[in-house]
Amino acid sequence: MVQIIDQRHLPHKFVIEELTTLEKVAVAIKDMHVRGAGLIGATAGYGMYLAALKTTINSDKDFMHSLAQAGEQLKATRPTAVNLEWAVKRQLEAILTAAGSREAKIKAAYEMAGTIADEDAEFCRRIGAHGVKIIEDISRKKNGQVVNILTHCNAGWLAFVDYGTATAPIYEAHERGIKVHVWVDETRPRNQGARLTAWELSQQGLPHTVIPDNVGGHLMQHGMVDMVLVGTDRTSFTGDVANKIGTYLKALAAHDNDVPFYVALPSSSFDWEICDGVQQIPIEQRSGEEVRYISGLHKGEIKKVLLTPPESPAANYAFDVTPARLITGLISERGICRASQEAILGLYPEKQPDIITKAKSE
Amino acid sequence: MVQIIDQRHLPHKFVIEELTTLEKVAVAIKDMHVRGAGLIGATAGYGMYLAALKTTINSDKDFMHSLAQAGEQLKATRPTAVNLEWAVKRQLEAILTAAGSREAKIKAAYEMAGTIADEDAEFCRRIGAHGVKIIEDISRKKNGQVVNILTHCNAGWLAFVDYGTATAPIYEAHERGIKVHVWVDETRPRNQGARLTAWELSQQGLPHTVIPDNVGGHLMQHGMVDMVLVGTDRTSFTGDVANKIGTYLKALAAHDNDVPFYVALPSSSFDWEICDGVQQIPIEQRSGEEVRYISGLHKGEIKKVLLTPPESPAANYAFDVTPARLITGLISERGICRASQEAILGLYPEKQPDIITKAKSE
Repeated sequence: MVQIIDQRHLPHKFVIEELTTLEKVAVAIKDMHVRGAGLIGATAGYGMYLAALKTTINSDKDFMHSLAQAGEQLKATRPTAVNLEWAVKRQLEAILTAAGSREAKIKAAYEMAGTIADEDAEFCRRIGAHGVKIIEDISRKKNGQVVNILTHCNAGWLAFVDYGTATAPIYEAHERGIKVHVWVDETRPRNQGARLTAWELSQQGLPHTVIPDNVGGHLMQHGMVDMVLVGTDRTSFTGDVANKIGTYLKALAAHDNDVPFYVALPSSSFDWEICDGVQQIPIEQRSGEEVRYISGLHKGEIKKVLLTPPESPAANYAFDVTPARLITGLISERGICRASQEAILGLYPEKQPDIITKAKSE
Repeated sequence: MVQIIDQRHLPHKFVIEELTTLEKVAVAIKDMHVRGAGLIGATAGYGMYLAALKTTINSDKDFMHSLAQAGEQLKATRPTAVNLEWAVKRQLEAILTAAGSREAKIKAAYEMAGTIADEDAEFCRRIGAHGVKIIEDISRKKNGQVVNILTHCNAGWLAFVDYGTATAPIYEAHERGIKVHVWVDETRPRNQGARLTAWELSQQGLPHTVIPDNVGGHLMQHGMVDMVLVGTDRTSFTGDVANKIGTYLKALAAHDNDVPFYVALPSSSFDWEICDGVQQIPIEQRSGEEVRYISGLHKGEIKKVLLTPPESPAANYAFDVTPARLITGLISERGICRASQEAILGLYPEKQPDIITKAKSE
């Protein structure tokens, strides 16, 4: 059995959900009970384990086939987040290469799910250790005055197994006594900022202010943002960053106002096969109802209200892609680098052969 | 007595409110029962008339003094919209220069309120006639395919006395049988797009889709926006445009993707004294509660729900300034021009002496 926080009810209610089958895992990911690059990957890892555990298929060939199908089912739930593909692929490899018995394969799946989750937490911790240097630097230049960091969506510990990516350097800075304040983009339409990041920061006692997604440009024009720090759901090996819809607009404003724009990511969020992020990264379209309706607390109960005229349709693109040229740097578990193929492969030299092979085969 | 549509209840309820005193007018403007550059100006015009009508002051000097105070009270309600200042100034001049008797002064105020309102409607009509040429042009280049126009906030007939500014060319194009589709930015935090523009377009039978404010950049990257068309609350004589918060972000995206970005305005929205919009235009800050809570329809009733953790603060800057360099053109009642001092004074040559005098006195 796998337990998750059903994040749909935050910040108003803290609900734990038990996931006992592959189908429940798929629904939990698709309907965003869990969300965030790392957490989706970790949950999918356990989803594959549940699929292996619960299957009633006897033949080994059919067993692997059914697991491959389970993987496809999971990957279809959220097309943009590459961690999902990556977790499924790792599980299939682990199960395939495990010793012959069914028990050994299930054990391998359980262990790999644990490895994915542990790695995610450890990588986020390292992202914090690397990224905090940037914040320390700004703090020094400002003679210890408050460092104002703008973030979009939630790339905090709710989006990963622990620490988060974008939040890890912020938590580390706070821990070290550096004065920080976070501008939290509310992040329409699902309000992961207003609901989740604000709640996380509150829990950590970290000063923050929720703002509509429209506000960041104005703040940057007036010197009220020292850096932008976001996560990513998929980053091309050339440094183009897919992240929650609206990230691109903040990157443009940061660029226009010379505000450093950083993206924090574990290496599991790199896509080593995509060269042009804007053209090639698939962008998930979700239901327009998520735009037309919103939930919030009314007299102690969570209520859903209609925001638009009943007859007006709405569109809901869940992500956009920020071109590498707008990004100051990437913060990964291995360190900080520019958002370019050369710099990324400098940190991940073992990926070089894959990319050369891929380029030749095209 | 003055009647307004109390726009706070749209699109869910159509409520008419009667304004009988200056105080009620001030509340209606401040609390956004009415909003939008032109409508604020027209309402303030009638507010000044009500102030003149209802005063119990006898001495002429004290009468003018009390009207000047009434003007200050109105101007303080919404600091960014310049139409408010302009309407108050026109009323004070009209009342001051009217023949001696109290009745004559009240009559002059009544007539000036009517003139301001009629001019507003007529100017918007002319903006439509000029602006439609841009849409016709795009339609021709696309061989009659649908022209996709993105707009932010509400600069429609709800924001003015009639036609609207940004919507006037769109309505005129629709009237002429040109295929148009409008991407409606929902426009957080007050959702003037999702609530008002979508409702207006529905009433006019105009195809439209509501989108979160975060989406425009992605649409522009993928060729899904042919032009951006917005209104303004105050435009410097150098072409810097203050408009609803978030406009600047859309202008950056339009610029980055070679999408034409137009601003429609009656000349009452020009500020002939402001040279640097970003530094000089006052930006209204409203209550954070407008960000933390939102109203919508739940089972036939308008309910207000909390969106954030109860302890998280929110900031609410109501406008931002888009620098002239990001603007393709301005559409005013006199025609279309570039967003530059030279081009603007080309359309309004009578303002040249004012600006020269102002520059010399600085």
